[in-house]
Amino acid sequence: MTKTIGILLFDDFEELDAVGPWEVLAYWTRTNPEDGWAVTTLSRDGTLVTAAKGLQLQPAHSYSDAPPLDVLIYPGGIGTRPHLKDEAQLEWVRRQRETVPLLTSVCTGSLVYAQAGLLKGRPATTHWAALELLQQLDPTLEPKPDARYVDDGDMITAAGVSAGIDMALHLIVRLKDADRAREVKRGIQYDPQPPV
Amino acid sequence: MTKTIGILLFDDFEELDAVGPWEVLAYWTRTNPEDGWAVTTLSRDGTLVTAAKGLQLQPAHSYSDAPPLDVLIYPGGIGTRPHLKDEAQLEWVRRQRETVPLLTSVCTGSLVYAQAGLLKGRPATTHWAALELLQQLDPTLEPKPDARYVDDGDMITAAGVSAGIDMALHLIVRLKDADRAREVKRGIQYDPQPPV
Repeated sequence: MTKTIGILLFDDFEELDAVGPWEVLAYWTRTNPEDGWAVTTLSRDGTLVTAAKGLQLQPAHSYSDAPPLDVLIYPGGIGTRPHLKDEAQLEWVRRQRETVPLLTSVCTGSLVYAQAGLLKGRPATTHWAALELLQQLDPTLEPKPDARYVDDGDMITAAGVSAGIDMALHLIVRLKDADRAREVKRGIQYDPQPPV
Repeated sequence: MTKTIGILLFDDFEELDAVGPWEVLAYWTRTNPEDGWAVTTLSRDGTLVTAAKGLQLQPAHSYSDAPPLDVLIYPGGIGTRPHLKDEAQLEWVRRQRETVPLLTSVCTGSLVYAQAGLLKGRPATTHWAALELLQQLDPTLEPKPDARYVDDGDMITAAGVSAGIDMALHLIVRLKDADRAREVKRGIQYDPQPPV
């Protein structure tokens, strides 16, 4: 029985928030199907999505035809802001909490979890520029401004944009083991050397 | 007059090879349009592309309707292998050399440049697992196995997959300045902390 990681797509999601983890996890699951995991993408209606910087992606599934998820990844981007006032979306998020064992976010995806009431009293992080808003949305949560990602058991929140790559490697450590994560890191030659 | 960076898309390109640089460069050009640069995507026929790990993207342009490019980014992925035997594609690449001031590649994109004869006697790199093939394709080139990217003036080649993020930041340094590159790095919170 293959388990499924679903990456949420929506208009104005930030491109690397979703595609960073996608690369890490799809590299893993396609190279090692014997590990029993797969990764897919889903959006509300399954039609072409235009991301925050203009890239267009075709989700694999709509909410209604997506397989049951074992892990959800909620990316950030300016497109999360409308979700904060979208009761149907917040209700969908709360339903995921009831059925998906592990919820994760990248960047401002955690704002939506906070607004949905899923971060009450819990440690969490987000993009550095959204930490104040995160705490405004739920004053009971414990912001972790210095964390690259915060693993709080059934909830993992990552910092801004590129932090999703590190979180996805951590997911492989959790779902498989550190050796596999190292293999994927080597496969995508993730030995960062920022020139500035 | 806005100058244009074009990111090539084709079936079986490796997702992060293209979307890593896209994030860096689109973040820059959308945040600072006053710098005079834009970034777009193009593919041979402009129709939906399926990447190496299954993600589907809609290019903004076909070869025939793309704007004149000032920089081309050729991503890698298993989809570069058919290009090595595709005379129409190799001829297109050679024409880009005549008209595009700066050619760049990520990962195995440099294999196509080598096969097109654009790396004769020049230093270059690629994904670590493809270095031998790179040198087989053009024994006159000087492989740089330890470089994150090789800037050889009008040709920049980057190492595997995630190296495109570092190369894209270097492009901002070259095309604008180091301060702007630092702003983008901060914007995408690119402070890598690989957990393995």
